[in-house]
Formats: sequence, C-alpha cells, structure tokens
Amino acid sequence: MTDKIIFEKIILATHNQGKIREFSRLFAPLGVEIIASHTLNLEEPEETGSSFSDNALLKARAACKSTGLPALADDSGLAVTALNGAPGIYSARWAEQQDGQKDFIKAMTKLHDALADSPDRSAAFVAVLALVTPERQEHLFEGRAEGEIIWPPRGDQGFGYDPVFVPHGDTKTFAEMSATEKQIFSHRAKAFNALREALFI
Amino acid sequence: MTDKIIFEKIILATHNQGKIREFSRLFAPLGVEIIASHTLNLEEPEETGSSFSDNALLKARAACKSTGLPALADDSGLAVTALNGAPGIYSARWAEQQDGQKDFIKAMTKLHDALADSPDRSAAFVAVLALVTPERQEHLFEGRAEGEIIWPPRGDQGFGYDPVFVPHGDTKTFAEMSATEKQIFSHRAKAFNALREALFI
Repeated sequence: MTDKIIFEKIILATHNQGKIREFSRLFAPLGVEIIASHTLNLEEPEETGSSFSDNALLKARAACKSTGLPALADDSGLAVTALNGAPGIYSARWAEQQDGQKDFIKAMTKLHDALADSPDRSAAFVAVLALVTPERQEHLFEGRAEGEIIWPPRGDQGFGYDPVFVPHGDTKTFAEMSATEKQIFSHRAKAFNALREALFI
Repeated sequence: MTDKIIFEKIILATHNQGKIREFSRLFAPLGVEIIASHTLNLEEPEETGSSFSDNALLKARAACKSTGLPALADDSGLAVTALNGAPGIYSARWAEQQDGQKDFIKAMTKLHDALADSPDRSAAFVAVLALVTPERQEHLFEGRAEGEIIWPPRGDQGFGYDPVFVPHGDTKTFAEMSATEKQIFSHRAKAFNALREALFI
C-alpha cells in the first residue's frame, strides 16, 4: 500500500459536529488530521449550486482559498426518481420551519403527498464529496444508496428521511437500523471509500 | 509503483489530432489506450462554461455519458493578469474570423492593444484536464505556465499566442522553442503530471 497523495491536514468545511466526528474517524487510519472549519472561524458560503457536486465544490473551494490547505466538503440528500430527483439539494430545506428549526415529519409527509399518484417509489440517498487542493486539483466522489420510499414512516434511529427509506437488499428502514447496520448501505461511506481508493491506497 | 485506478481505455473528448497524439503518447506508459471521441462519432457539446474547468468538465461528462467509459477532456488558454484573466476561455475565439478560420496575428494585436496602458505584463498559459468516470468520479487538474507578454511577436514554432509569451526562467518565447524545450514549461504537461501522480502512481 502506497499513500500516494500525502495530505497531513485537511480542512473539513462543515459546522456539523456529526460529520466532523465521522470524517475524523474515517481519515485517522490514513494519517490525515481533520481540522473543522469552524475552529478557524471560516464562514460557510451560501449553497447556491444547482447540484450536490456544485454545492460540495463551492464549500471546499472557499475553505481551501481561505486557508491554503486541502479542503473537503460534502453535500447530500434524497433523490426520488418519480420527482425528477427532488427533494435533492433541497432535502434539508423541505424540512425547514419559519423559526429555522427542522421538521422532518412535515418533510416526509410532503414527500408522501408528492408521490401519491406514482407507482414508482424508487429513490436514492446521494452523497458527493469534494476535495480541493491549493494546487487547484478538484476531486469529486459520489456515493449512492439505492432503495424505495415506504409509508408510513418506521423507526426512530438516524435522522432526516431515514424512517421512509428502505435500501435495496434489506427490509428495514434506515431509521430501524443501528449505525453499524446502516453503514453497510451508507451513501457517505461509499463516497469516502471511492475517495480513499482513488487518492490514498 | 502501484497502478491504482485501472483504466484500460479512456475516451478523449476532442477532435484535435494534435491532442489525440499527445495524450496517446502520455498515457501509453500507464497501459491506457486512448480512444478519440470522433472515431465513435460523438458530438462535441458547446463550450458554454464560464471557466476552463467548466468547459473541460462538460466535454468529459458528455463523452462519459455517451460511451459508459472514463472520459478525458481539456480546456486551455492564456490568462493575462492585467485583463482579469482575459482572453481566458475566449483565447481561441479572439482569433476567429468571419469565415471560421483563425488569425492569431489579429488576436495578438488585440491583446497588445488591450495592454497598452498597463505596466503589468504578467500572464499564464492555463490548462485544465477533466477526467470523469462512469462511477461518477470527477477529477480536475490544473497546470500553469507563468510568464510575461512581450511585443513584438517572436518565433515561428508552436501556435496561438506562443510568439508573445516568454515563460519565467527563460528569455525565449514559446514560439522560439523546440517542442522539447517548450515541454519543460508546458501547462498541459503539468496538468497531465498532476493527474498521473494523483491517480496512477
């Protein structure tokens, strides 16, 4: 095994504590230290892109530019076939309340209503990781968890749309799985594995 | 040396015979066969992007989508500091005549006129390579040759803006250099080397 591109430190462009923990754990065996962008008081740019890739790239580019270090960002969401990929990059925004809090019961109900007339229930959780280097290399990796939207919601693990998503190859929703079980199907883990295989091993 | 990502064949999204020869030669030692997109009758999409990266990506994405194979495309041009990066993605278009032929004497004169009042003559030839895989990985590599714009034009080798560009570290214009001499500074060679180091060795 050759560690090819030697990144000692990578800025992680997120304010999400869960993602910081997850990526720190994933990168540790590669000898890479993850520095959370909020510890450097970096502003997160607005997610004005029209795709997961655009949004991940603009966050990673901004963090790389501010710090001069390689920067990683991700964007992810649920893409429903019969809705032409919606809610997609708006997955979190579908849940937003006027007070800024998120209500995913409301978002899942909205999804169920939008699918009312559709026999096609196929959907995928999609994650895109963008890694941008000071030498102006840009790397994008997509990971997908293919599955079906079910109704009513089941389970209380996980977050977001997990209670209405059953991945292919299982009968439980993501919200009925332990973190370890869910990891097998995880779109974010698949994107990370693609990154690791392409750039590190 | 581990060949990490094993690409046996890569579609090269260009109709330019010179680029097909150059990339076939560069990829041969990596055991990669270059297939020119025109041999498959693939249409080249319009270059509607707003950056070298955008244009290279949209060509590579289109070729990957049509063929289901990894696809490589490049975009390049001359970025002049005092002109905020112009002619940039319009480098070739600055030379276009009404009959579709290219006149780079005209383009170099236009550049010289635009720089008339500017003491800053710094510029860079920039090349961006985009490699897109069917697994939806996207890799971008930038190569730059930094230098100065001079006047009047000198030399008759090369093409495009070569007669008015002197790279840092030399006194000859690109058009006064042999292909071998120019290769040392080549923006496209630097982008290729970044790709090779990141993905192959």
